[in-house]
Amino acid sequence: MDLVWICIIVGLVGAAVVAYFVRYVLRQDEGSVRLKEISGAIKEGGLAFIHREYRTLAIVVVVVAIILAVVPALGWRIAVAFIFGALCSMGAGYAGMNMALRTNGRTCAAAQKSLNQGLRVSFRGGAVMGLTVVSIGIIGLSILYLVWHDDPNFLFIIPAYGTGASLVALFARVGGGIFTKGADAGSDLVGKVEAGIPEDDPRNAAVIADNVGDNVGDVCGMGADLFESYVETVVAAMTLTTVGVILAPWVKEVLFPTLSPEVALQRAWWLPLLIMAAGIVASVIGCFLVRVGEKVEMSALLGALRRGTLSATILAAVFGFLVIHFLGASLGLFWAMLAGLVAGALMGESTNYFTSYAFKPTREISEASTTGGGATIIRGFATGLMSTWPPIVLIALAIIVAYKFGSFYGVALAAVGMLSTLGVTLATDAYGPIADNAGGIATQAALPPEVRERTDALDSLGNTTAATGKGFAIGAAALNSLGLILAFAMAAGIVTVSGTGKLNPLPPELSLLSTPVIVGLLLGGLIPPIFCAMTMKAVGITTAAIIDEVRRQWREIKGLMEGTARPEYGKCVDIATRIALKQMLLPSIMTIIAPVIVGVVLGKYALAGFLIGALATGFILAITLNNAGGAWDNAKKWIESGQFGGKGSEAHKAAVIGDTTGDPMKDTAGPSLNIMLKLMSVISLMLAPVLMHFGGLI
Amino acid sequence: MDLVWICIIVGLVGAAVVAYFVRYVLRQDEGSVRLKEISGAIKEGGLAFIHREYRTLAIVVVVVAIILAVVPALGWRIAVAFIFGALCSMGAGYAGMNMALRTNGRTCAAAQKSLNQGLRVSFRGGAVMGLTVVSIGIIGLSILYLVWHDDPNFLFIIPAYGTGASLVALFARVGGGIFTKGADAGSDLVGKVEAGIPEDDPRNAAVIADNVGDNVGDVCGMGADLFESYVETVVAAMTLTTVGVILAPWVKEVLFPTLSPEVALQRAWWLPLLIMAAGIVASVIGCFLVRVGEKVEMSALLGALRRGTLSATILAAVFGFLVIHFLGASLGLFWAMLAGLVAGALMGESTNYFTSYAFKPTREISEASTTGGGATIIRGFATGLMSTWPPIVLIALAIIVAYKFGSFYGVALAAVGMLSTLGVTLATDAYGPIADNAGGIATQAALPPEVRERTDALDSLGNTTAATGKGFAIGAAALNSLGLILAFAMAAGIVTVSGTGKLNPLPPELSLLSTPVIVGLLLGGLIPPIFCAMTMKAVGITTAAIIDEVRRQWREIKGLMEGTARPEYGKCVDIATRIALKQMLLPSIMTIIAPVIVGVVLGKYALAGFLIGALATGFILAITLNNAGGAWDNAKKWIESGQFGGKGSEAHKAAVIGDTTGDPMKDTAGPSLNIMLKLMSVISLMLAPVLMHFGGLI
Repeated sequence: MDLVWICIIVGLVGAAVVAYFVRYVLRQDEGSVRLKEISGAIKEGGLAFIHREYRTLAIVVVVVAIILAVVPALGWRIAVAFIFGALCSMGAGYAGMNMALRTNGRTCAAAQKSLNQGLRVSFRGGAVMGLTVVSIGIIGLSILYLVWHDDPNFLFIIPAYGTGASLVALFARVGGGIFTKGADAGSDLVGKVEAGIPEDDPRNAAVIADNVGDNVGDVCGMGADLFESYVETVVAAMTLTTVGVILAPWVKEVLFPTLSPEVALQRAWWLPLLIMAAGIVASVIGCFLVRVGEKVEMSALLGALRRGTLSATILAAVFGFLVIHFLGASLGLFWAMLAGLVAGALMGESTNYFTSYAFKPTREISEASTTGGGATIIRGFATGLMSTWPPIVLIALAIIVAYKFGSFYGVALAAVGMLSTLGVTLATDAYGPIADNAGGIATQAALPPEVRERTDALDSLGNTTAATGKGFAIGAAALNSLGLILAFAMAAGIVTVSGTGKLNPLPPELSLLSTPVIVGLLLGGLIPPIFCAMTMKAVGITTAAIIDEVRRQWREIKGLMEGTARPEYGKCVDIATRIALKQMLLPSIMTIIAPVIVGVVLGKYALAGFLIGALATGFILAITLNNAGGAWDNAKKWIESGQFGGKGSEAHKAAVIGDTTGDPMKDTAGPSLNIMLKLMSVISLMLAPVLMHFGGLI
Repeated sequence: MDLVWICIIVGLVGAAVVAYFVRYVLRQDEGSVRLKEISGAIKEGGLAFIHREYRTLAIVVVVVAIILAVVPALGWRIAVAFIFGALCSMGAGYAGMNMALRTNGRTCAAAQKSLNQGLRVSFRGGAVMGLTVVSIGIIGLSILYLVWHDDPNFLFIIPAYGTGASLVALFARVGGGIFTKGADAGSDLVGKVEAGIPEDDPRNAAVIADNVGDNVGDVCGMGADLFESYVETVVAAMTLTTVGVILAPWVKEVLFPTLSPEVALQRAWWLPLLIMAAGIVASVIGCFLVRVGEKVEMSALLGALRRGTLSATILAAVFGFLVIHFLGASLGLFWAMLAGLVAGALMGESTNYFTSYAFKPTREISEASTTGGGATIIRGFATGLMSTWPPIVLIALAIIVAYKFGSFYGVALAAVGMLSTLGVTLATDAYGPIADNAGGIATQAALPPEVRERTDALDSLGNTTAATGKGFAIGAAALNSLGLILAFAMAAGIVTVSGTGKLNPLPPELSLLSTPVIVGLLLGGLIPPIFCAMTMKAVGITTAAIIDEVRRQWREIKGLMEGTARPEYGKCVDIATRIALKQMLLPSIMTIIAPVIVGVVLGKYALAGFLIGALATGFILAITLNNAGGAWDNAKKWIESGQFGGKGSEAHKAAVIGDTTGDPMKDTAGPSLNIMLKLMSVISLMLAPVLMHFGGLI
């Protein structure tokens, strides 16, 4: 039997668990009429955004697919795989967000009963997202495999699937990120700062847009991001096994020393899929282990989530070992996989250390806030820069270990290991914005203060898991991107590997110090900062438009400030949607076109340098922006907890500036970089059959 | 005759012009007793700092020299060259700063007469620095050449000279940078913000420290930085010509096709020295062309400085062409040199565009300030990131052109071309802090307001030239660093060049995609952000200490606020000195040790990747930090000129936060990165005879 059927079955099991969680959540109480009204407005706004975003996306996807279909070296199969990947990604994001929109209000209602019930509902809502992403991912890949693995172009078809997913993810992250932070900052500045009314006050026309933003940015964007990472790690590992259409000799020698070449190739393709399947089983078990007793302290909550992810990690390692053993692969591959798994877990912890106010770095930012906004920014930015070292060192170590035990395939397998437990990691991550939204709804519905306290506790925990999840997402992106770059280099014929898994002597053009590579490196290193500049500026434009609109409503709608009239929430949602969709185009299209231009004009060697250069600066920038942003957020929370004068003090004002600065960094620019790096790499891989013929003009 | 004697003569001519300018400045009126008293205090503080800094430095230099002397593959000649380089750099920095300290008060006195007279005195004070640096540079290099060019180890001796200069420069930049920005921010925060007294108010105990800072950071640090770039471009060009101890065949074939190998080698060594000599002559002429008529508008002032630098650039190109022609070198080398010269000039203009309030990017930051501090920071940071594209594209183009016409030697020669007019560029740069100091002295001495207005006009012009100078310094550092990395790769035997100037096929370890190179790249990319984090944090520590001290004096010294008692200025200078010297050690030592550790543990291939990785992220970070900082500074000035509510408005407060944030970025972390990149490269080059034996553990 083709063992890939096991993956289909595991994917269906994942889907069944999703159905169980969906049923559980939907059976929960929706709360009062007012509560239903508010969550209904959020749902309406979120779905309106996503429908318009997907319409824009559909045009881009169809245009790209037509281009792919007509280029002779590519063809219709590639176009079909590309569309399939785009549809899977859209489906995963849509399903996750749709569920989150239905869980928000129910979490709020559940928190009226108890903290524990609030946790259960919100976590299961998040778990739907996590398990949907991995189930769709593995089923999609398995279908591609079963349909086309005998096709001689199979290894050029699967990158197209990844590219489709990547393209959707980039638009979702960038568009959603601009929307969410533009609405958030606009709402805060015009409400809290200018008018002096509380956060989430229903008189503020931008509050619904702010709540919608959490869903379209943090849920839908994050889901599409990690769906992409998930499928592309498998793509990279599969692609690295062959030279053209035949098995690379080193794969047999090094990875499957006891098998025949035909069997070895089949197993090399099965291996990443089956490790992912093992990870899904581990994740499902992990999800069910998240439960707390009657104790409702923070530490118990955190312990519950940690138990889930840690158990899943250990189980994934054990199952992964069994897969490697039974497929007759070299046991070295287990160490490669384990290196990725461990590095991923530690990177999450490092992010937590640098961004949680339980630790020194963030508390120092709070302290610096006592000397003003400038000091807050400098200290936070310094923390962000400093926080780059653990992830980079961990990734470097993972690469060294993985390469030693499994050559390039090992590096790709480390990424597979890292992402195998995505189901449960993503569940803990998606739960955060649900709790955040529940808090917003509680305030707008004027529920008793203890409800908001409970949702705040859930939200605060969500910040910790979100930080861990973000660290993990960046690391996965970096390792995955590297795997794709290696796959591109092999597919374009610019590196070859000897029978022992080492690199063969090279064409001089690929030297680190050849002009095409150096020029490519410099230009590639330029793309992430420009991309960040564009997206951060776009947030500013959205913010300004939202502020204008809220001011206009206060001026023109009589009785709004007195609470006798309702603001037009839909207007703000509409404005944020329109601007976000417009502003996402330029940076996204730059990402798609840049590697193609470099590949065609400067040649394939420069393109390899370009991708590595982008990885080097993009990785550093992504960590810096994410962690500085997270640290500023929590430094403000630390002051709000009563330190350094507490809320309303001068230190608090300075910390708020830090928080406002950090928002577009950590929720728009930073996470989009992950996708940008992967998208540029996978586009290059997909176009390798074309680009291999371009030697370049320099 | 050995044509290097021409360089000695030109160096002496430069020194004679320096003597002329010194005599001119010293004959100017020193002003009133109060004025002399203030400038005396600044001088005392500056000299006290520099003496203590040099004592610390002396220890480091001696320790490193002893290590170099005892390593068998290096030896005493290398130790001597290293010490010689360190002494030259210290001398250049000391002379420039000493002169600036004597010019400040005289500029203030001259500005009492007229703006024109103020410009002449301050510019000639700055020109002393510019011409001293290039004169010492060329004389030092020529002496080394004349003494040791027959020594078989000559090409390992000259990098040691560069390393000595680099080491001193790093300490001077980092130490001076921490001092100046710590004192500046501390003085502003405790004076302007907390106590509400004007900038440079004599009741503020930190004002003298602030004025001292301009001299030790912006003058002495900048001088040492560019001295280092200056000598190291020559070092890189010379080192690239040989394989081991014999002329590389491609040098004869490609660069000097009509000459015999012996003559070709000699000429390849003469060429960069003589181009530098030509540039000094051009710079001297340029310096004398800086004069304004009786019209004293801003545009006339700027025009005067532009005329000086532009004429020098054109003359340097013409003289450079003649040198290349008469040495019988391939005319392609002229294009390589010109590519560098033009790229340098355009990079300065690009910096000016992104940081001057005459243009859109900075005005947009001012506008964003109306929505608060967070928006100011985001927009400024986005501007900094966006401003990376022109320098990177220009450097990439310069590399392509230079490589095409002169292979690796061409790349090094492009850097020589860029720096040939340093004499006059640095003059326009060093003039800025002198004018800035003159303004501070005018306020403290309670001179009539029109004097401060005139010095402010000079200062404002100084900001423009400083921005241009900084863009130039970064570009020069990047190109120079690349030249040194190429020289290292050749010296360590990891790349070889064919007879036609192309790379030979390579060992697979140097592939862009080999594990050592990728791991090296990632780790190298990590060093600049960590370095920035350390130095920016150090500024915060200094600032806090200064604030504490000023507060203490106000509390404890009776009559201080009423103006009946004098603050203890020396205490603040002392505190800033102590902390700066302590805090500069860790980042500087990390810079020295990191390449050695990577080279020994991970091997020479990883080290090549490490240096390129550091260049990729360091270049981006340096431009971003410098330009964001400059743009914030000028966005504040644009508001102060009456836009968006002017001084005291909410927008102004937000813009002040931007300015405070930008200060340590643009004056401490950013410029130090230049030196860091060059130092790591030149250390690797110097240690190439040792490191070539380390294949690495991975």
